[in-house]
Amino acid sequence: MKIAIDAMGGDHAPKEIILGTMKAVELYKDIEIVLYGDEKRIREYLVEHERISIVHTEEVILGTDEPVRAVRRKKQASMVLMAQAVANGEADGCISAGNTGALMTAGLFIVGRIDGIDRPALAPTLPTLDGKGFLMLDLGANVDAKPEHLAQYAIMGSVYAEKVRGIQNPKVGLLNIGTEDKKGNELTKHAFQHMEKMNLNFVGNVESRSILEGPADVIVTDGFTGNMVLKTIEGTASSIFSLLKTTFTSSLKSKLAAGLVKNDLKDLKNMMDYTEYGGAALFGLKAPVVKAHGSSNSNALFNAVRQTREMIKHDVAQTIKEAVNQNK
Amino acid sequence: MKIAIDAMGGDHAPKEIILGTMKAVELYKDIEIVLYGDEKRIREYLVEHERISIVHTEEVILGTDEPVRAVRRKKQASMVLMAQAVANGEADGCISAGNTGALMTAGLFIVGRIDGIDRPALAPTLPTLDGKGFLMLDLGANVDAKPEHLAQYAIMGSVYAEKVRGIQNPKVGLLNIGTEDKKGNELTKHAFQHMEKMNLNFVGNVESRSILEGPADVIVTDGFTGNMVLKTIEGTASSIFSLLKTTFTSSLKSKLAAGLVKNDLKDLKNMMDYTEYGGAALFGLKAPVVKAHGSSNSNALFNAVRQTREMIKHDVAQTIKEAVNQNK
Repeated sequence: MKIAIDAMGGDHAPKEIILGTMKAVELYKDIEIVLYGDEKRIREYLVEHERISIVHTEEVILGTDEPVRAVRRKKQASMVLMAQAVANGEADGCISAGNTGALMTAGLFIVGRIDGIDRPALAPTLPTLDGKGFLMLDLGANVDAKPEHLAQYAIMGSVYAEKVRGIQNPKVGLLNIGTEDKKGNELTKHAFQHMEKMNLNFVGNVESRSILEGPADVIVTDGFTGNMVLKTIEGTASSIFSLLKTTFTSSLKSKLAAGLVKNDLKDLKNMMDYTEYGGAALFGLKAPVVKAHGSSNSNALFNAVRQTREMIKHDVAQTIKEAVNQNK
Repeated sequence: MKIAIDAMGGDHAPKEIILGTMKAVELYKDIEIVLYGDEKRIREYLVEHERISIVHTEEVILGTDEPVRAVRRKKQASMVLMAQAVANGEADGCISAGNTGALMTAGLFIVGRIDGIDRPALAPTLPTLDGKGFLMLDLGANVDAKPEHLAQYAIMGSVYAEKVRGIQNPKVGLLNIGTEDKKGNELTKHAFQHMEKMNLNFVGNVESRSILEGPADVIVTDGFTGNMVLKTIEGTASSIFSLLKTTFTSSLKSKLAAGLVKNDLKDLKNMMDYTEYGGAALFGLKAPVVKAHGSSNSNALFNAVRQTREMIKHDVAQTIKEAVNQNK
């Protein structure tokens, strides 16, 4: 299989992108990688490899670019060429750590939607206290969603959890402000009714209060709420760690304590660090399009390759298509 | 001034309610309190006081009762009688630590809305890292809101922050998934346009990632999102503290460290504990209706009395009415 990678996207490109790519081809003998970007800069880090090739381009979409306009106008951008390779069948999937909005735009307009899916969804795997993690979608591909869209997210998430994460009969929950069946706003009340009727292991409403405890393998929500909740988790965790830091440097006694648990606390902080969890896949597109975190190091990029490879191997796009049409 | 209190609402009623009441009359010489509930049980804790009276009733609305039905059918419930006292002009404001939905129903249908306000809003003061705190509304009085409702929440919050919290020209922010002006879903995009034109110190969009850092004195959102964000903060904080506990008991070394910072960590946990922050006022009603936390101890109830007294003293309801009509 062939994976197209935007070598110029993200805060640490191209260095960490190339290092992650080399690690991936080393481990997975069944993948070929095509890097899109500035050949000269790529070669600063790349060790020649028979399964890594380069398509040179100097145009780049920046993090500050307005997504839709950038994809339309920067026709030679590394991210755009990468998406076109997938659309043309030259690659089976693609990865970028660049501008999220632009990647969603490129995915939607260049790679294209699966027939029967109205809206793609951005779906990262988030950590839980027990380390298993769960898939949450949509995290912001579409800010306004209808009940039918949430129902489609449920199917896509369930297929992914089963095929890629290897969870049999994955539990699917609807993010809501109460666990009772009738709770919620107009959107969640109607989405509940749709999801109840579908061929899914639907466990009902789950509350944001308990999501880190892992009440379901897949949690479905609209892009506005999902993005809001994700940022709230990040913000709260970061606030508490900053308070902890203040606590641990406030006195000689507490500095002593900090020395004793320093490594444990670092583990804890890493556990809450979403960059450790690799990429967020865009579901509902004809081929895997994976967003690696903007601050991706080589390890995060490697994880995104692993994830893309699994999605290609298990033909997630085709399975989603079949499942959506079965549930119509 | 006279404040009506539901003596039977909340997990620790009537004991903590009575203790909080006695503390309040001790400190504030200008308040009279009427307690609604089971006289015999109230007298177990009450020390006779010339400014505390009892209206006996045996009916109680439970936490498990369906709110609207409970308020309609349990006509002699302590919470219902308390709200009627306010509606009849026998009391200037009221407090309950009982069923939140029922209190909102009683507030809306018995006390009644201010002319010009379409929807009341539930507005607690939440903690920030610097200890100042901020007002957030709506936290769930109305799950579905229109842009005009959010604009009214902004006015109500601003009036409260100025009158009761003593903040001059309070900063009002709109909770959104990005700080740029054009970000958001249909609701927030339109609410932004309304709020921009109003006579407010509108600071634009604020992200949930930074709310604990206090980007505004008043943060406006719809009830569904507000409730979701609040529960996410609570859940994340509680998950991290449970992980910390595991960390601190995992080895002899870490147990030693825990001993050294035990009190500091307790302070930190309290800082994130919303029960410390007293009541959540229901804004937009003709008189103050304050919800004390369900797990209220006497101190939380005392704080709710303090807050209600301030709202009555500064005539918040009348000022909201004038401000809403000015901004029409």
